[in-house]
Amino acid sequence: MSLPSPLRGIIPPLITPLNSDSSLDVKSLERMLSHIMEGGVHGVFILGTTGESSGLSYAVKNQLIEQTCKFVAGRIPVLVGITDCSFQESLNLANLAKSSGAEAVVAAPPFYMNIGQEELSIYFKRLADEIPLPLFLYNMPSHTKIAIEHDTVVQLAKHSNIIGLKDSSGNGVYFQSLLNSLASEVDFTLTVGPEEMMAETVLMGGHGAVAGGANLFPSLYVKLYEAAVNRDFQKIQTLQKVVMEVSSGLYGFGNCKSSYLRGVKATCAFLGLSQGYLASPLYGFSDSEMVVFRKKFDQVHALVLSVT
Amino acid sequence: MSLPSPLRGIIPPLITPLNSDSSLDVKSLERMLSHIMEGGVHGVFILGTTGESSGLSYAVKNQLIEQTCKFVAGRIPVLVGITDCSFQESLNLANLAKSSGAEAVVAAPPFYMNIGQEELSIYFKRLADEIPLPLFLYNMPSHTKIAIEHDTVVQLAKHSNIIGLKDSSGNGVYFQSLLNSLASEVDFTLTVGPEEMMAETVLMGGHGAVAGGANLFPSLYVKLYEAAVNRDFQKIQTLQKVVMEVSSGLYGFGNCKSSYLRGVKATCAFLGLSQGYLASPLYGFSDSEMVVFRKKFDQVHALVLSVT
Amino acid sequence: MSLPSPLRGIIPPLITPLNSDSSLDVKSLERMLSHIMEGGVHGVFILGTTGESSGLSYAVKNQLIEQTCKFVAGRIPVLVGITDCSFQESLNLANLAKSSGAEAVVAAPPFYMNIGQEELSIYFKRLADEIPLPLFLYNMPSHTKIAIEHDTVVQLAKHSNIIGLKDSSGNGVYFQSLLNSLASEVDFTLTVGPEEMMAETVLMGGHGAVAGGANLFPSLYVKLYEAAVNRDFQKIQTLQKVVMEVSSGLYGFGNCKSSYLRGVKATCAFLGLSQGYLASPLYGFSDSEMVVFRKKFDQVHALVLSVT
Amino acid sequence: MSLPSPLRGIIPPLITPLNSDSSLDVKSLERMLSHIMEGGVHGVFILGTTGESSGLSYAVKNQLIEQTCKFVAGRIPVLVGITDCSFQESLNLANLAKSSGAEAVVAAPPFYMNIGQEELSIYFKRLADEIPLPLFLYNMPSHTKIAIEHDTVVQLAKHSNIIGLKDSSGNGVYFQSLLNSLASEVDFTLTVGPEEMMAETVLMGGHGAVAGGANLFPSLYVKLYEAAVNRDFQKIQTLQKVVMEVSSGLYGFGNCKSSYLRGVKATCAFLGLSQGYLASPLYGFSDSEMVVFRKKFDQVHALVLSVT
Repeated sequence: MSLPSPLRGIIPPLITPLNSDSSLDVKSLERMLSHIMEGGVHGVFILGTTGESSGLSYAVKNQLIEQTCKFVAGRIPVLVGITDCSFQESLNLANLAKSSGAEAVVAAPPFYMNIGQEELSIYFKRLADEIPLPLFLYNMPSHTKIAIEHDTVVQLAKHSNIIGLKDSSGNGVYFQSLLNSLASEVDFTLTVGPEEMMAETVLMGGHGAVAGGANLFPSLYVKLYEAAVNRDFQKIQTLQKVVMEVSSGLYGFGNCKSSYLRGVKATCAFLGLSQGYLASPLYGFSDSEMVVFRKKFDQVHALVLSVT
Repeated sequence: MSLPSPLRGIIPPLITPLNSDSSLDVKSLERMLSHIMEGGVHGVFILGTTGESSGLSYAVKNQLIEQTCKFVAGRIPVLVGITDCSFQESLNLANLAKSSGAEAVVAAPPFYMNIGQEELSIYFKRLADEIPLPLFLYNMPSHTKIAIEHDTVVQLAKHSNIIGLKDSSGNGVYFQSLLNSLASEVDFTLTVGPEEMMAETVLMGGHGAVAGGANLFPSLYVKLYEAAVNRDFQKIQTLQKVVMEVSSGLYGFGNCKSSYLRGVKATCAFLGLSQGYLASPLYGFSDSEMVVFRKKFDQVHALVLSVT
Repeated sequence: MSLPSPLRGIIPPLITPLNSDSSLDVKSLERMLSHIMEGGVHGVFILGTTGESSGLSYAVKNQLIEQTCKFVAGRIPVLVGITDCSFQESLNLANLAKSSGAEAVVAAPPFYMNIGQEELSIYFKRLADEIPLPLFLYNMPSHTKIAIEHDTVVQLAKHSNIIGLKDSSGNGVYFQSLLNSLASEVDFTLTVGPEEMMAETVLMGGHGAVAGGANLFPSLYVKLYEAAVNRDFQKIQTLQKVVMEVSSGLYGFGNCKSSYLRGVKATCAFLGLSQGYLASPLYGFSDSEMVVFRKKFDQVHALVLSVT
Repeated sequence: MSLPSPLRGIIPPLITPLNSDSSLDVKSLERMLSHIMEGGVHGVFILGTTGESSGLSYAVKNQLIEQTCKFVAGRIPVLVGITDCSFQESLNLANLAKSSGAEAVVAAPPFYMNIGQEELSIYFKRLADEIPLPLFLYNMPSHTKIAIEHDTVVQLAKHSNIIGLKDSSGNGVYFQSLLNSLASEVDFTLTVGPEEMMAETVLMGGHGAVAGGANLFPSLYVKLYEAAVNRDFQKIQTLQKVVMEVSSGLYGFGNCKSSYLRGVKATCAFLGLSQGYLASPLYGFSDSEMVVFRKKFDQVHALVLSVT
């Protein structure tokens, strides 16, 4: 399929369903993909942070790319994360994405070495030159240490093979600055990572969200996206409230740095979509935590069902 | 005057006009206050970060409180910053604010000692107990090191003398979380610091902005605020663009950490509102920088005039 | 008294003894000063971080300066902290220090505004120009956000009124770099803050430590300092172990950011030197914590007594 | 060969010599290894930060492990970095290290996901359980975001397959705390990363350094290490000065975040040891920078030759 330009809407950053031995759970992968497509999402992004890409072996990454592209079979655009500290490994992933039929790739900055904006800019230009698919930039400073600064994005947006930015910084000033500076680049996609900011940014001209919660309740985010596009404030208010309850109820449980991923994977298990295993160094809730979390889930689930 | 609850609209964080010897330039203070009131602002906040509060002597702070209250004379609400590392000095400022006729005070966390949320919560409760005016919390982690976390705000919002939050973090997820969690506290004010995020947050239920740019072009921000309240998207688009051009043109010149304050004070001087002196450790542009900055200002000024 | 140049040895950063109403406990102040002088310390530093300077009112700061200078009466050098975000308030404190008879002042960077090294350098030069006493720089990036970088120190060391640096960063590479770069400035004092690093830095040419633990057990640190000066490795080994046990036993209890100050003040109370009150926003251990901490103290105290 | 316990002395973190196409320059690798062995080093550490491990493809990593072990052939212990965000890839590297004949492996925390100390502790225990070689912990918070905190190290040191720590934090308090807490674990190796702190930490009981400069001038660091072991303060003073001149002259040129690696690789080229290519996202000095840097090198080189 051809990639819309800009790419609008809800693009779930797919979790990677794993077996207990950390191998890919292909059945669950297919279930997840069917689930989100039934929810009306506008694309799928594999091998992102929610996909625990950094914790997967290359064997699993490769299998995930192939299986996803094969199963999706052009029904929605497939975006493949190629973030890696090694340029060559990023290239390898991009090449496999291309040959498997993906539509685009997504790269955050290399995240071990401490570098500056100039090195970052050169890095992305070279990457965009050498890969066989269009590239989305991925701003994720909480994980990569370095932000892709406003001026760097504006400069990189001129590269013909760099087609958009996913901003997971949560920084509203940064995103508004980019919306303004890139207003004339009508094909350049600007989406936020945090689904909590999706409605307001779409109202201001943003293109959507790479919404982690769309793994769980894809139609909720699709509906909120549509309400924002239509400036239907009554619906926005109703749906935004539920989106915020998903966040506060399911992403912060246990109050640790991996609460979000623990919550998302436990919820996928509750929904019968996948097993709950996480990739090392993360691991799931304890049994006693699970009992309490289940109650939270039931409340949130009922709320979601009441509006979708 | 009585304080609206919540306090909606545009509240400029007033610059502190200084003479070359760092004494208060009272004439310019009055000119600034007249300027913003003519622009239709909904209140004024003195002794904030834009007011360079931390750099002023207590003699100047005290004079500023008295002169501002006297000159404003109840025409708009006066909010007085009492942020201080010493509890007693915060109390002293609050007491003077009360006796001078101010409507409320604003406090960020004490910013030298490294503390946790529990200490912060106890601190704000004790402050709210002992001061004679209602208190706005001021979240400013880039300057104070510590954020007032979501759960702390929600807890503090129950205190009868804590009436709102100014959030200068720029973190859109944090602000949406507070809008949702405090939806039932209908009198609690939630405003952002960064004017770049004002329109989108007002569309989602926020109450306005403590907009630094309203020192310069108050009616621009008032008009954008009103457009957001009225969901007039055509006006929002036009005005938001100008707001962003003010930011990008006037706040980042010279690309250093004090660019924002240098730009604001130089612009005040260009507009004939005040002298351009900054409080130590900050200082203004060099003469050669000023020549270039003047051109930027002229462009931005023309743009602002075209829409206000 | 005249100030040795460089100033060598153990300089306790004196705690500020407070009454329950946050007024200065003058009796305890005198007891503390007698205690450390009996322990053989080489000077005293008031209004530092351990002295909770930031949390004190100016009335208390002024009284502390006057009472300390009067009581010490030239027996050891008195260094006065003048760290402040307001240049004028720093000047005021320095002038009072001079008129009260102090030998030097100590200033960390202004700690609210985010500034760069150039602004910092200009700030310290102006401060050194205008104050009537010699100035020690105070590097404390965990509290001030900004470090006084190596090159800035080297440049400032050329100023005739800047006579030394207290480095509380704990960064061993930074300190070694300064020892090397300033080797020819034989009068410039280079001391560390963290007493845990005192012995090793004295062995390498450093001049001593502003040791918080010397409030509690001054002779322990003086003996370790002398052992390091004499390269008496058997004594160093014995005493360093005790110094580390003081740190691990008394500074980390409760595992919160203010553990160090809570522990120091509680220990002062156990030793009958002062009351345990801390300045807001800090506060002491709870009663139940105190019971457990008392046991820790008894163990550490016995160990200290066995070597001093 | 058997691994000394603790492992004392100078262990260069070997640079990875690359060809212009980022393939391994095996000839230069052998030259580097001969160079450091002739200098008397006590081991070699490949695939560390100085080895640009994160930027290498797995093909290059694997070749490097095999070629290094083959060429060293038991003459000095070979330590192999297995730091990786994927547990399985770390295992793969460890298994190859074992089968190639290496003596130990070294792992920093996984560095993409934000985790806590408990997750980190579980991670290292599982790694130590599953790898076929003894493990050194590698504390490198500037690159991995997370520090291996004192208590975590003390706990992990009890694991029979965790045999030491390389601390690259530069934090002198942390290192002294570990020296004290692990004093009874006589076989546990505690070395610093920063060579600037080697002498002082060896004087206090540390075991040596993973000294980047030992790629360039191995005998300089070996001599300083021996002087510290022998408490020969005259030699320490002479050699420490030169070590600091290497740091200040060769590691900070251009004042950017990758100055250290640029300087090390350029110097290797000047010394005829390897080509100067760096792995993406890093790159070397420009031609004009090289001209200036060459002069710096000549000065430093002459100084080094005068003492070795």
